[in-house]
Amino acid sequence: MKLSTGWSNQMKFDSVVVRFGGEMGIKGEWTRRTYEKLLLENMKKVLEHHNIPRIKIIHKRGRIYIKTENVQETASKLTLVFGVSSASPAVETTSDMNDIVHRAVEVADIKFKNGCSFAVRCHRVGKHPYSSMDICREAGNKILVDLKSRDLKVNLTNPMFTLGVEIRDDYAYIFIETLRGVGGFPLGSQAKVICLLSGGIDSAVACWLVMKRGCSVIPLFFDIAPFTDEAAIAKALDVARELFKWSVGFPRRVYIVQHGRNLETFVGVNPRKLTCILCKRMMYRIAERIAEIEKAEGIITGEAIGEQASQTLINLRVLNEAVTNYPVHRPLLGFNKLETEKLAKKISTFEISIRKAKGCSAAPGKPATKARLENVKKAEQELDLEGMVEESIAEAKIVTV
Amino acid sequence: MKLSTGWSNQMKFDSVVVRFGGEMGIKGEWTRRTYEKLLLENMKKVLEHHNIPRIKIIHKRGRIYIKTENVQETASKLTLVFGVSSASPAVETTSDMNDIVHRAVEVADIKFKNGCSFAVRCHRVGKHPYSSMDICREAGNKILVDLKSRDLKVNLTNPMFTLGVEIRDDYAYIFIETLRGVGGFPLGSQAKVICLLSGGIDSAVACWLVMKRGCSVIPLFFDIAPFTDEAAIAKALDVARELFKWSVGFPRRVYIVQHGRNLETFVGVNPRKLTCILCKRMMYRIAERIAEIEKAEGIITGEAIGEQASQTLINLRVLNEAVTNYPVHRPLLGFNKLETEKLAKKISTFEISIRKAKGCSAAPGKPATKARLENVKKAEQELDLEGMVEESIAEAKIVTV
Repeated sequence: MKLSTGWSNQMKFDSVVVRFGGEMGIKGEWTRRTYEKLLLENMKKVLEHHNIPRIKIIHKRGRIYIKTENVQETASKLTLVFGVSSASPAVETTSDMNDIVHRAVEVADIKFKNGCSFAVRCHRVGKHPYSSMDICREAGNKILVDLKSRDLKVNLTNPMFTLGVEIRDDYAYIFIETLRGVGGFPLGSQAKVICLLSGGIDSAVACWLVMKRGCSVIPLFFDIAPFTDEAAIAKALDVARELFKWSVGFPRRVYIVQHGRNLETFVGVNPRKLTCILCKRMMYRIAERIAEIEKAEGIITGEAIGEQASQTLINLRVLNEAVTNYPVHRPLLGFNKLETEKLAKKISTFEISIRKAKGCSAAPGKPATKARLENVKKAEQELDLEGMVEESIAEAKIVTV
Repeated sequence: MKLSTGWSNQMKFDSVVVRFGGEMGIKGEWTRRTYEKLLLENMKKVLEHHNIPRIKIIHKRGRIYIKTENVQETASKLTLVFGVSSASPAVETTSDMNDIVHRAVEVADIKFKNGCSFAVRCHRVGKHPYSSMDICREAGNKILVDLKSRDLKVNLTNPMFTLGVEIRDDYAYIFIETLRGVGGFPLGSQAKVICLLSGGIDSAVACWLVMKRGCSVIPLFFDIAPFTDEAAIAKALDVARELFKWSVGFPRRVYIVQHGRNLETFVGVNPRKLTCILCKRMMYRIAERIAEIEKAEGIITGEAIGEQASQTLINLRVLNEAVTNYPVHRPLLGFNKLETEKLAKKISTFEISIRKAKGCSAAPGKPATKARLENVKKAEQELDLEGMVEESIAEAKIVTV
């Protein structure tokens, strides 16, 4: 069957092939369908947000094909959608072998450098009067013959260019370039979480990692003024804005809790070396209350084992004890600092996080690295913890960034 | 000062430069010293374990220099020590510039390929009558002159070979090759943890990640026979053996808990879709009891958000609720499956984990992905949970692998 020859038209990259196999592909049928539907919605939101007009969207199992005037921007923006594993700007044609081979030559003519090596790879779903191998052979030969003057060579093991042909039922897509996405699951496929966001390197990456696994996030910033300066809050909000680029169409709310007075109280408590532990336990308690209010299902922090004095395994246990109704999830637990920094650069939060801001001036010179729960509880005994939580929540601000 | 010319001796790679900067280097003085001492102990254990004789070990801030007959094996084995960021087989010489330049030419002569490009890089600590730049210039020039027939070229931006010179007080080390370690913190610098180890891909990687951050681990395997076959336990023990290659000198104990009878009980409980949740909550409870016995400080699992039906964020919260005294740490929380597999290959557990074993035959066809705590508690109400834990602990076996 030949839908149209189209040979007289000027060849144009008019489509984007979006892939989301991997983990989504191995889910049960019902889950997979729900996830794919959600992914499609998230992709549409991104296209709308960037004012990218699309002419047609075809959703097939494991693939979405988008017909658009602006293939490069579409492909590039869609790699910022969680669940997308890759996207290729492509030329659409019919699944007729002559059409495919003809278009393949045109694409090769435009994209291949003189004297380069190439391979043709074909992926085919549907019933066709030819095999994938036939396509590779026919297209490869025709490229060699028609572009004889270009001095091209076939190299199947390590080609400089790979011409991809993806045939899906009545249509075929021809492409050279593949932009990598980050995979994971579509945002919103998992429950909501509260993310402690300091503006620093770690918490931003931790937040992004759970977004990648499908969680929508509500960042929570603790303002410890006067123990820091105003740069701290500006950094945190800028980090939140950067992260929200990955959640187009979802709420962009950030909780800001005035934590300075709480911290002042803790500084006055003996022993002084417990200040950080007491401060963090209070942060967790407040996060727990906000999780209740927001009907979230967990609390996310950027802690990595041993990275800071307060983050020894022993201290993490003492911190955990402050929260009873929600799990505290720490996606960076096993990350080295360098690994976290590398990821922060990739997601563009690094440059924001390293901007100068005054570090916490309430931190003791020698913080406890092996806090004992009974000592911590004793130190907390005299304090009106519940009142501190209540007041912090009452004074919390919610900003949309 | 010239300690020895040594020029008449045949040049020999006789030393290994071991680096452990990065995260250990930015710790406070006391912590850093404690960590470096522990790292040195762990390194010695590895050398003894592999019967590698060493002639001398020099420990300086941020570096350990090992004099040995067997530089390649030493460097290679030491990259399996957590905390080591890299190791280079090297030639030791005095810090006299003539000695360094002479040895540099000898190393270049042996290691450089004809016609290659190279650069000399120098790192220097101590007081010397020359600068690092002087060394680079002198060594570079002498190599070009003395090895004129070899057609070498200097390329400072993208050289094929980099000749490293590290000068530390009275000694200098010349090397070409640098083997990467995995960084992190020396094993034992953090508290002990109980790691749920199934033999599958994920739990092995989770276990390794917390080892990398300094935790010594006690693997805990739940034998669900007759709901699986004997291949399962063999896999888990082999994975444990592979992981213990990273903890030479530390205990190699594995807990094996007979969990089949517990699981049989859960299969009989309504609703059937909760079986996995009930089973896992019991695993957590037993792990908690073992943590108490072993004075561990946390429980490690291989769960990643959304990877399996039991691992939705909502379910993780329900699972967490079963444990009150210990944190459940999930280092893979934000990992994509592909990322976990890549790491599993790197640490050589992948091939073991993909060996065939019968999957759990008790898993329901449609497991709950949004379990409600009240329903789970209701289902558990009729069960003698405490008795199940007691019995499981009483019958637990501890094997040394």
